Amino acid sequence: MKFSVIVTLKKDVLDPQGKVVLNTLVNLGIDNLKSIRQGKYFEIDVDEVDQVKAEKQINQMCEKLLVNLIIENYKISKIK
Amino acid sequence: MKFSVIVTLKKDVLDPQGKVVLNTLVNLGIDNLKSIRQGKYFEIDVDEVDQVKAEKQINQMCEKLLVNLIIENYKISKIK
Repeated sequence: MKFSVIVTLKKDVLDPQGKVVLNTLVNLGIDNLKSIRQGKYFEIDVDEVDQVKAEKQINQMCEKLLVNLIIENYKISKIK
Repeated sequence: MKFSVIVTLKKDVLDPQGKVVLNTLVNLGIDNLKSIRQGKYFEIDVDEVDQVKAEKQINQMCEKLLVNLIIENYKISKIK
């Protein structure tokens, strides 16, 4: 069972990486950008047929390693 | 108008970063993982009301800067 995890910085956390991307795009001539925030993306394939169990496991992975819960939010979605 | 862009490595491209995450999770005691691939995620807010125009612009940003089309795929979705 395959899931995607999107990790984003919380609203009030500064995102210097996104800021650099924004500035670079402005320098490339794109002029109507309001904001860019960068995050992380994972595609996780687990060997589990029960969706509830699988999601619980993905949650565990996020909390143990993938996500810094102090500054980041995450969203899990099933891909297939 | 706000869009999300998910950038992933193409299927046959090796993902050493994902491999490290996988190994670390295995070491943390998670035993039924099949694979993890890591990608990039962007939330882009453009000052444009026409969705077609906005998407065209996001496409341009992807091709100019955000995505390496040789080894990566990308997917644009409207958030709001």
